[in-house]
Amino acid sequence: MHTDLVAALDIGGTKIAGALVDGHGRILLRAQRPTPAQEHGDIVIRAVEAVLGELTASPLWSRVTAVGIGSAGPVDASAGTVSPVNVPGWRDFPLVERVRAVTDGLPVELIGDGVAITAAEHWQGAARGHDNALCMVVSTGVGGGLVLGGKLHPGPTGNSGHIGHISVDLDGDLCPCGSRGCVERIASGPNIARRAIEGGWQPGPEGDASAAAVAAAARAGDPVATASFERAAQALAAGIAATATLVEIDIAVIGGGVGKAGEVLFAPLRAALRDYATLSFVQRLTVTPAQMGTDAGLVGAASAALSRRPTNTVVVG
Amino acid sequence: MHTDLVAALDIGGTKIAGALVDGHGRILLRAQRPTPAQEHGDIVIRAVEAVLGELTASPLWSRVTAVGIGSAGPVDASAGTVSPVNVPGWRDFPLVERVRAVTDGLPVELIGDGVAITAAEHWQGAARGHDNALCMVVSTGVGGGLVLGGKLHPGPTGNSGHIGHISVDLDGDLCPCGSRGCVERIASGPNIARRAIEGGWQPGPEGDASAAAVAAAARAGDPVATASFERAAQALAAGIAATATLVEIDIAVIGGGVGKAGEVLFAPLRAALRDYATLSFVQRLTVTPAQMGTDAGLVGAASAALSRRPTNTVVVG
Repeated sequence: MHTDLVAALDIGGTKIAGALVDGHGRILLRAQRPTPAQEHGDIVIRAVEAVLGELTASPLWSRVTAVGIGSAGPVDASAGTVSPVNVPGWRDFPLVERVRAVTDGLPVELIGDGVAITAAEHWQGAARGHDNALCMVVSTGVGGGLVLGGKLHPGPTGNSGHIGHISVDLDGDLCPCGSRGCVERIASGPNIARRAIEGGWQPGPEGDASAAAVAAAARAGDPVATASFERAAQALAAGIAATATLVEIDIAVIGGGVGKAGEVLFAPLRAALRDYATLSFVQRLTVTPAQMGTDAGLVGAASAALSRRPTNTVVVG
Repeated sequence: MHTDLVAALDIGGTKIAGALVDGHGRILLRAQRPTPAQEHGDIVIRAVEAVLGELTASPLWSRVTAVGIGSAGPVDASAGTVSPVNVPGWRDFPLVERVRAVTDGLPVELIGDGVAITAAEHWQGAARGHDNALCMVVSTGVGGGLVLGGKLHPGPTGNSGHIGHISVDLDGDLCPCGSRGCVERIASGPNIARRAIEGGWQPGPEGDASAAAVAAAARAGDPVATASFERAAQALAAGIAATATLVEIDIAVIGGGVGKAGEVLFAPLRAALRDYATLSFVQRLTVTPAQMGTDAGLVGAASAALSRRPTNTVVVG
């Protein structure tokens, strides 16, 4: 007997990935297109439809019972719309309706990409077995999602866990979001690099001024590069501690390019957490690198679709 | 036919209040003792037992099906223990076990006092009808609690919503909790008064240097007093915006003595929220004064007890 499948979409500013996924999170079929991010919204949705066309053409499609979408945000799960910052052609774009129109009217579950990553880490990655977890992506931006009480917590509009835009420095630098001193404004890869360069760090002869190059310099003992990572770690620690103090998470999982920096990030992060996570009920909080790879968005979108099918009572995990 | 009742305890540093409460939140019987806060823990529990003794002696007691406790924190609901900062004789004190021993083995539900206030505001006060809310007490300290997805969210140990000890100023002043720049360190009543005095504000001829006196001076146009409330409002706004950005609350309810300051607090708070709550999904966030009076702790503790009885499936609201 064949088990049910779900279709998953991972929509970002660079690529649109799709897959058919089984109840164990195994990917049985893939499709992908580059995101025509700067084109008109109609062009972008055609790329999504092309990905879905490859999936619906498969003989496996008859077993698909739901569609899960993890999209760059902001999203509005209650309205079924998305407004990805880096896809200007989509503003309040009715993505759920458009996807449903080409997927036989199946139920469609929409969540933000940070929430999708979190679903994947909780199902099969570093947050497995943790009932209360924060999962983060620290790269060009800083995103995240929450597991509370054993379940994914997308929030009413699918945006919960947006730790990149909480202020940990209320008089700090203006953030592109309009606020000040946001975690992302201090801890994202570009800000780690900017701070190092401002401090006098010299990119290598190849001109690589990425956060990864700063991390390499820090590992080699460069004090300015080290200090920039320490400042990022401090901001991440304040944000993670705030999250734990507000909703009692016991683990924070950190992925993304900056999350791959290793002990250059994690050693000062653990030290700073001791400074900011002070109340008794948050002192056992741990931080750990993400375990899921590039399929995290697809697996997380699949998890969201599986969780709602067929009566919203199936528990994935 | 008589309906079921619950017993409620509200345990603070000043008083221990008890009540029998019906399913509509009506208080049918009260008992109260001063908290012998500086005495040995055995003396403190005897005051609790005296309060409960008055309740169990009532003919109404036969209708009581559960006991709810809201206690000054930190609490540990999973262990059934409390360690109130201002009751030094109780450290990891097995309050649930001791209460159960004198209440016929009834189920006992323990939550923090901020969570209890939140339960009350959600059931009958300013957060009624809101599925995602933060309720705060801003007075000597800053506490709070969360409603998420229509339900009270105490968290695994009953401490969720501790907004007073999230850092909004990561390089800021050291807080007694050990962290820096906590919301409480900037926005509590004593800190509002301290900042005004440091800025040159002169308490009135009666020597009243309370936050209420600073509020009166601000209403009379004193710029230093006004600035101190504006700084408190800024810290509260950053903390409330952080909470909304993390878990998508749509209302923040503010009670406690400082919460009673009126527009001296709420006008700059609304302005500061526009600065810090910038993402699309948090822009509809509102702030409003609390509606419950001094019985909020008892009503909230009762609500927690009603919610768990008899099979954890009864929804209060």
